[in-house]
Order: sequence, then C-alpha cells, then structure tokens
Amino acid sequence: MPKAAVCREIGSPLEIVDVDLQAPKAGEVRVRLGASGVCHSDLSVTNGTLLSPLPSVLGHEGAGIVEEVGEGVTNLEPGDHVVISWVPQCGECYFCKHGQGELCEPGSAAAMSGGLLDMTSRFSVGGQPLFQMAASGTFSEETVIPAIGAVKIPDDMPLTAAALIGCGVLTGFGAAVNTADIVKGDTVAVVGCGGVGLNVIQGARHAGAERIIAVDMNDGKLQTAQKFGATDLVNASDGDPVAKVQELSGGRGADVAFEVIGLQETIDQTINMARRGGQAVLVGVPKMDVMTTIPAALGFVILEKQVRGCWYGSSNVHQDIPTYARLYTEGKLMLDELISNEITLDGVNDALANMGSGSIARSVIKYS
Amino acid sequence: MPKAAVCREIGSPLEIVDVDLQAPKAGEVRVRLGASGVCHSDLSVTNGTLLSPLPSVLGHEGAGIVEEVGEGVTNLEPGDHVVISWVPQCGECYFCKHGQGELCEPGSAAAMSGGLLDMTSRFSVGGQPLFQMAASGTFSEETVIPAIGAVKIPDDMPLTAAALIGCGVLTGFGAAVNTADIVKGDTVAVVGCGGVGLNVIQGARHAGAERIIAVDMNDGKLQTAQKFGATDLVNASDGDPVAKVQELSGGRGADVAFEVIGLQETIDQTINMARRGGQAVLVGVPKMDVMTTIPAALGFVILEKQVRGCWYGSSNVHQDIPTYARLYTEGKLMLDELISNEITLDGVNDALANMGSGSIARSVIKYS
Repeated sequence: MPKAAVCREIGSPLEIVDVDLQAPKAGEVRVRLGASGVCHSDLSVTNGTLLSPLPSVLGHEGAGIVEEVGEGVTNLEPGDHVVISWVPQCGECYFCKHGQGELCEPGSAAAMSGGLLDMTSRFSVGGQPLFQMAASGTFSEETVIPAIGAVKIPDDMPLTAAALIGCGVLTGFGAAVNTADIVKGDTVAVVGCGGVGLNVIQGARHAGAERIIAVDMNDGKLQTAQKFGATDLVNASDGDPVAKVQELSGGRGADVAFEVIGLQETIDQTINMARRGGQAVLVGVPKMDVMTTIPAALGFVILEKQVRGCWYGSSNVHQDIPTYARLYTEGKLMLDELISNEITLDGVNDALANMGSGSIARSVIKYS
Repeated sequence: MPKAAVCREIGSPLEIVDVDLQAPKAGEVRVRLGASGVCHSDLSVTNGTLLSPLPSVLGHEGAGIVEEVGEGVTNLEPGDHVVISWVPQCGECYFCKHGQGELCEPGSAAAMSGGLLDMTSRFSVGGQPLFQMAASGTFSEETVIPAIGAVKIPDDMPLTAAALIGCGVLTGFGAAVNTADIVKGDTVAVVGCGGVGLNVIQGARHAGAERIIAVDMNDGKLQTAQKFGATDLVNASDGDPVAKVQELSGGRGADVAFEVIGLQETIDQTINMARRGGQAVLVGVPKMDVMTTIPAALGFVILEKQVRGCWYGSSNVHQDIPTYARLYTEGKLMLDELISNEITLDGVNDALANMGSGSIARSVIKYS
C-alpha cells in the first residue's frame, strides 16, 4: 500500500494516508516515484483556484522507475526511469499530428477527468475511489499512469532533477523555445520569476536571447533569476515596469514578453512591454474572470503585435523530455539549482504553505 | 504637369487637377504610372476613417515605369518597370534587419507623414504644397517616391496587374503566407471577401490549405471567392457564421481564421472561429475605438490560441514583389481576375462611390 497525499476538499490540508492502488490495465504502467515537485498548480487545487475533481491524490510533476507494465505496453519495461507527462500524448489525434501534442485530445480529456485514458482512477482508500490529479498523482510513493504519459530518460539522471522536467521545465523552457519565436540577439522580458519563470529565462537564453529582463516584486527571486540567465533585473515595486523595459530596450520594448503569473495587471503590462511587431506570450494560468482587452487597431493590426497563449510549453513530451535530460547531462539545463528544498511526503503541507514566499523556487518531495 | 486626383478635405469629392511635381531628390525616383488600384484605404481617407494629412494626392497601389532617378540611386534606372511599395523598406533599420520590413522605421514615418523619407512631398498646386498619400500618390500620371519604395518587375508584365501587387496582394497573400503559419492540409476561414480577402484566399491555397471557408454577407463576393480558391461558402446573413465554420471543420474550428474587414463583430467572430491551438489573424484595419476582449484563461492560455496582427502582409517587399510577379507569369497568382473595372483617372470618384457594392473587387485606373 503506497502512502499518498490526498486532498479531500478545498481549503483542507492534504491527508497523508495509505491508499490502495490497482494494477495497471492495458496500456498503463505502474511507477514507483523517485521524486515529485510541489507546483503552484497543486496549491491552486487545494484553494479552489484550479478546479480538479476531489477527493484526489495530488501531484503532477514527477519522475520514477517503472515497476510493472500493463498488457500491450511495448515502449517501456520494468526498471525504466521515466518522467511523467501530465498531458499523456497519443501521437494519433488531430493535435498530436499537427505538432501540438500538448493539446492531445484523449490526453487532455484524461487530465481533466481526474482519471486515466478511460476516465477512471486507479487509487482508492477504504473502498472509496480517489481521483488522481492530471492523469498523474505524483504525491504518492507509487502511481499508475498511461504508458503514453511516461517518457524514458537515462538511468543515471537523478530523479529529483528529472521530476522538475515534468511540469515546470516543459512549461517554462517550452514557452521560450516552442511557443515563442525568439531569434538570436533578441531582447526578452519575463514577468514573474517563480519556478516556471526561471525556466522561461533559461529557455530564452538557450534560444539565443541576448538581453533577458527579469521582472518581479521580490528581490530574492530576481537574484535567482540572474543565476538562470537574466541580464537585467526590474523590481516592479520600484515604478512602472513597462517603462523600465522600454528604457532597457532602447525605447522599443521587448521582442518577446512572457507573463508567468496569471494576473490581470501583469498580463496587461506584459502585452504593453512587447514592441511593435513583438510577441506577448501568456504562460501563467489566470482565473476564469480575467480578461485581456486590447485595442484592435493599435494593439494588433497597425502595430502588428501578437498575443500567444501557451499551454504546457507547446511541448511534444516524447521529443522534448529526452532532449531536456540530455541538456541537463551536458550542463546546459539547470535543474538542481531549481530545487530550494528537499522534503519528504509528510512535509507537503508545509511546502504548499510556504509557496510564494519568494525564497522557495521549488520544493521537491524525495521518496525513499 | 501631371494630372492628379487630390483630396482637399474630408467629405469632398477628389478634384482632378494638373499638379506640379518636383524632380526627384537624392535617393528618389520619378515614376510614370501605368496603373493604380482604387483601394478601400483611399475611401477611408476621404471619409475620415483613416487619418492622412490633407490636402493630398491619394492612391497608394500603383505600378509604372521609372522616368528619372535622383542622385545616388543605383538599384533602378530609367525604363525600369516597378511596383510601388507604400512602406518603403530601407533594409537597415531594426525592423528590416529582424525580417519585419513592413514595420520599417524610416519607411513607416514617411508613409504616415504624407511625404517622402525627409517628410516633405514633391507635389504642389498653384504654389500650395500637396501631401502624397503613404509615400506614394498613385492617383497621378506621375509621382516621385523613394527609390527603396520602387521594386523592379519584368518589363512584360501588364502594369494593371502589377499595380494590384502593391497593396491588396502584398497585404492579403502575405497575411496567409507570411503572418500566419498555414500548413498543408489546414482548414482556413476568411471573413470578408473584398479585394484583400480574395488575396488571403489565394494565399491560403498557395500555402497548402485544403479547406478554405469564405465568409461574407454578399453572395456575389462569395461566388468570386470560389474562383480564387474558396472550397466552402458561408453567407453570414444566414445564421451564426461561427457555428457554420465549426460544423464545416468537424466541430473543431479553423486552424487559421482571418478577419479582413475591421469590425468589432467580425473580429470577435473570427477569434471564436479559430480552433483550440489555432490562430486568428487580424488584417482589416479597425477604427481606433474597436477593442478585442478575450478571456485570458480560456481564450489564450488553456486553449492555447494566438491572435496575430497583420500589417502589410508582414511583407519584405524587395523579396515578395518579384516573387508575386513570377507567380503571376507562372499562372499561380490571379491578378487580372481581381480587376472588375478599368477606369480613367476621371472616374476615380465613381469608383470610390461604388466601392463596397459587392460587384466590384477592384477598380483600376489605367493611365495612357
């Protein structure tokens, strides 16, 4: 019986309990987790900002070792080290075939259902079914997931580092290298320097951006941003950050500006930071009532701006996860530096509570 | 003394008068016009929708023959046939070097000033200076323009066809092949089937779109759209066009949806026609008070949509004009079919008045 962190209802602390886990069905694998990041989206489920079926085993940013494969699974075998993708990507649907696996039809339906591809979960406690967040449920010593949601990585990669690829890196690094069109020498602004924002920054650096302006209200986060490649730091508490970004970019504005928070004010600022002909990429997930209001003529047509939504970093996980593992081993992707705190599963409530304090880029649960 | 059509003030008919034309200064050329299209933007200046300095020689979609070159002009010589670009592209500024010549800094400043690169015009009448629209002034038997705003084409191409390249083709065809990312097999929707919309349609066909859904309220325009490559016709008067486009695209919506009118309602419809992960490209120039209001989470981030403004078809005129001339000679670009009406300069007021009746795709002034 694996131990797991269960969210019973909005507003309550997670309960750490022993849960029942069914064997993998056809096309599924059982994974013993090595590590799971604690992501802002987990907090958003506990406070009701993000709607996810409850009661549920939370956690969606994990890496581990395959213990058992279900019928018909040919891409994985027991002993394989894997990163978990919270959008399983089938490779067969309209979106996967159009190079937009992040929108995979069966994968997205599963992720939203709180179950796997057949919309049912493999977790239960005392006979009561438990959903599993985003087709994952990585706040558990073990989980069962779709085989198309587990992507093999080299055995020698630390699972703590690997876990972070599963959400924050795919989303942030992917926003820079997949969603946006950054070209060598570009000036980029990144509004919000939490775990995902830091990955946008290192993704922008990887894509060839010359000037990377980090914007946050927390000096601690800005210092960390510098380690990840930010060349200029703007504390948004010290005056209008749009004017600062324009000043730093020769009066023009940024070639690409990223919003990695999800607030009305910062979305508006980010769109205004993008230069004539530039791109604003919206990465942070806003509440449902947040609206973007842009003058059609001056915002879009005449100034030829673009606003691009970004979901899961526009990632093809089957390609991108192995690439990121390779970049890590080559020293070109900082992962260990993202981890500010290694905890045990019992510490997950504290990690959620401390989130957003600014000192913590990422707490990572390490399973023994 | 060339004869020209002059707009003295908003709301008055153009006056056909003999004007004085200075010789080209350094870096300028004098062009004897062979033809000029009558574009919706000319009408917009006369009715005050588009602000352009007055009094002014209108017209900005022209082709002709170089008669005289100013000092230092090396790229052109007398006798060259040219298409006029109403954004002269310098090749040297930040935007030209970033592959966004349509936003050329000196070129845009000139186009807005009503003059040439030094912000002064070469036209006058009775000693009174006349501005020239969009660094062009093609409603004149002759004009003087920046040499970087005249692009050489083959001598054997009819100038009536060539003129249309200068605005409608660069804008519409360019929106499809430059601004949008159309891939082979895509489903595209085009809202508004006037002169520019027809070019979006043939551009989408050129880019490999398999299904091209034309949307308009005028059956005559829809019939013309079919000749340019539309595979499905939706009369927006017959019910919700968004629902129709979704129905025609398997419930998904269009991969790319273009708005080529500039109205609040059609902009909203176009954004809603784009599928999850799709693109809405805004081509029509709206009035300044038109706002796009899009839910940030569901409109952009979670559904990963993109809204892209399009200015002058995101064109590099020095590359694209010769390409379009070649496509025309190879039978891959329909230009003659865009011309519904050949007129003389004296008929320009009638052509403006008849605009939007639906039967006229493009009136073209043919100079003798």
